[in-house]
Amino acid sequence: MQNHRVLIVGGGFAGLNAAKNLTGPGVDVTLIDRRNFHLFQPLLYQVATGALSPAEIAFPLRVVFRRQKNVTVLLGEVTGIDPAEKMVQLDNGEAVAYDTLIVAAGATDNYFNHPEWAQFAPGLKSIENATEIRRRVLLAFEAAEREMDLAKQKAWMTFVVIGGGATGVEMSGAIAEIAHDTLHKDFRRIHTTDSEVILVEGGGRLLAAYPEDLSISAEAQLKKLGVHTRQGGMVTAIDADGVDVKNGDATERIQAKTVIWAAGVKANPLGRLLAERTGADTDRVGRVIVEPDCSLKSHPEILVIGDLANFPHQGTRPLPGVAQVGIQMGQYAALLIRNRVHGMPTKPFHYWDKGNMATIGRAAAVAEIGKLHVSGVIAWFMWLFIHLMYLVGFQNRVVVLIQWFYSYATFNRGARLITGSKDQLTPGI
Amino acid sequence: MQNHRVLIVGGGFAGLNAAKNLTGPGVDVTLIDRRNFHLFQPLLYQVATGALSPAEIAFPLRVVFRRQKNVTVLLGEVTGIDPAEKMVQLDNGEAVAYDTLIVAAGATDNYFNHPEWAQFAPGLKSIENATEIRRRVLLAFEAAEREMDLAKQKAWMTFVVIGGGATGVEMSGAIAEIAHDTLHKDFRRIHTTDSEVILVEGGGRLLAAYPEDLSISAEAQLKKLGVHTRQGGMVTAIDADGVDVKNGDATERIQAKTVIWAAGVKANPLGRLLAERTGADTDRVGRVIVEPDCSLKSHPEILVIGDLANFPHQGTRPLPGVAQVGIQMGQYAALLIRNRVHGMPTKPFHYWDKGNMATIGRAAAVAEIGKLHVSGVIAWFMWLFIHLMYLVGFQNRVVVLIQWFYSYATFNRGARLITGSKDQLTPGI
Repeated sequence: MQNHRVLIVGGGFAGLNAAKNLTGPGVDVTLIDRRNFHLFQPLLYQVATGALSPAEIAFPLRVVFRRQKNVTVLLGEVTGIDPAEKMVQLDNGEAVAYDTLIVAAGATDNYFNHPEWAQFAPGLKSIENATEIRRRVLLAFEAAEREMDLAKQKAWMTFVVIGGGATGVEMSGAIAEIAHDTLHKDFRRIHTTDSEVILVEGGGRLLAAYPEDLSISAEAQLKKLGVHTRQGGMVTAIDADGVDVKNGDATERIQAKTVIWAAGVKANPLGRLLAERTGADTDRVGRVIVEPDCSLKSHPEILVIGDLANFPHQGTRPLPGVAQVGIQMGQYAALLIRNRVHGMPTKPFHYWDKGNMATIGRAAAVAEIGKLHVSGVIAWFMWLFIHLMYLVGFQNRVVVLIQWFYSYATFNRGARLITGSKDQLTPGI
Repeated sequence: MQNHRVLIVGGGFAGLNAAKNLTGPGVDVTLIDRRNFHLFQPLLYQVATGALSPAEIAFPLRVVFRRQKNVTVLLGEVTGIDPAEKMVQLDNGEAVAYDTLIVAAGATDNYFNHPEWAQFAPGLKSIENATEIRRRVLLAFEAAEREMDLAKQKAWMTFVVIGGGATGVEMSGAIAEIAHDTLHKDFRRIHTTDSEVILVEGGGRLLAAYPEDLSISAEAQLKKLGVHTRQGGMVTAIDADGVDVKNGDATERIQAKTVIWAAGVKANPLGRLLAERTGADTDRVGRVIVEPDCSLKSHPEILVIGDLANFPHQGTRPLPGVAQVGIQMGQYAALLIRNRVHGMPTKPFHYWDKGNMATIGRAAAVAEIGKLHVSGVIAWFMWLFIHLMYLVGFQNRVVVLIQWFYSYATFNRGARLITGSKDQLTPGI
């Protein structure tokens, strides 16, 4: 009998964990990703702020599956899906057949119908995003050092982060630390401690997904780091020189040369493509609405997991787009397929919420674990420990631990490099 | 009395060591570089071959000079030099005055009047070069894995390195190790051990600057790693599909998708600009011919040091463009300026040749220290120790040591990332 062929699209938390758990005889797995590595997204902001190098949070997919001989990794992009023929087309014209298809293509930045904002306010979804943000933040201080016009100098030293979720909180806290601790002895003309970091949140409070007391704690911890928060502010314009923030009837213009987007995500376009081909429903941000077993109603042999899935069967809202949901859905998808191959039933997917945590800065974080709400140093240590534990690769864990220890001891950041294309390396004032 | 103003252009080995040694009262230093970091070029090939991350061999100039308060670092590019007014123009229109000017702008790849070859055969002078080569090498194996046409597959698995100096030897040895050791269990369709690595050298032997017995040893060590050498071969054409190598009357076509340029360097264009303004002579590759004290005859207050200088006063040939020459010239320039400020004479510059070493691969290297010629494991350990010792930054040393230890133990490479622009991430077959 031929092995059951599983095709997995995407090597993020969901796809990776599905493939890792599809061991044992009878199943062949093909894992397709546009990148040759698994990216540990929760630490991406540390690359964007010069604390870690890209390779320290990225692990080659081929190394993960070196010994798992039933997994074939292909570097490529999906361009078409044919559910009737059970085939997927790749960008090189190749077609790959499947018995079960797992789509775990993840999410991308959502600029809410303003794609032109992307050039002025990069998001934080890829390694390239992160090194671009790192370039902009470091270059801003260099430009300020060389700028004689005081108003322009102030705009170079003003940083706006849009979106008060975990990413926005982490980014704004880290930029404030760069200005106040890392760089403050490195310049001769400017005082980097005069920098202003502004976190703009459209809703009433930061970390809206967390309990209210942790939102308040996060705001207080950010304030201590020197971050100013603008809550209830809607961004109405972004250009090369700053941001317009509307609050009620008043519109404030913030002159800022560096703007970072952390205001929301939408599903990978593959979700809409899949929905068109299968008749599945998608939500407002393009996520595919799945059955209690993460499959599609019309095509039980197609599973959608991770950030691309809208799973509405637990709680009052769809499950959040966090690493833990992806990991557990990946494990579940593998179990479901193994059971099906053996003709056994599987219970519906149930997400076990282990808690949420966001780091704010040096010895500053918030964490929610069941009914336990923790802030400050203890939450920060928990955050360090858990993120180190989940990082793929022993070597990465050792090196990241050293980098963190060093950063903590010296206030320095090991990866303060301005890299990129030739005309972006010096401040173009 | 006003302090003596020293302006240093370039933060490589020469410029960095000049600035570091210009301590003490009476001297103000401005250091201008296009990059915000000092790059440890001797390990750049390890970034290009995925063994190290960029930040591990680059160190922020501002951190080097944090405590040396008489040094101001400016990120910028020199666009003009006015020796009569003792002024240098920067790209933002700023003009900086000097009493002594040190030009240490280094070298760039020399394509010998074939600038169009650069796109097909990147050189290895910058971080961006290195990550581009890393992308091409790793992507070639990915493309081969997905290629069904056997001739095309072979072209993806053929790597040509042009130039048999230290860089070419190091690059070809490292690529052979990637193919034979690092990747050989990671693919399912291709055998990476079938890859061919070809080192093309125009002259009669590899490592022409080394004694002949070490050239022979290097060739033997490369052969053991699986590198084929083509000596006496002149490259007459490079395009997207391969290289033409002329040997006598015969021209061989090598079908290869990945070609790397290590065939020679020329001086930074700033050398020619300086020569025009001062009447100084330049050599065939644009280096500025300097006096025995590294100054210009017509302008004793202008010093040229490092790879940009042609120093013809010691031995039968100009001093080579190696790190040690740059370091010693930088130290000398600082001494000369300090002596001049105090009205004291200085002996001419004398290069103390501490020896040469090139690594070939795992436990393979050659070293020449005075009359001592060493090959193999011992030379390799010497190489490791000396390169670790000269690396700037304690943290870098610790992290690089761990990465090397890990690579040695596991045959893996910690930074196997394909990064770059969006359309370069998947194999475009």
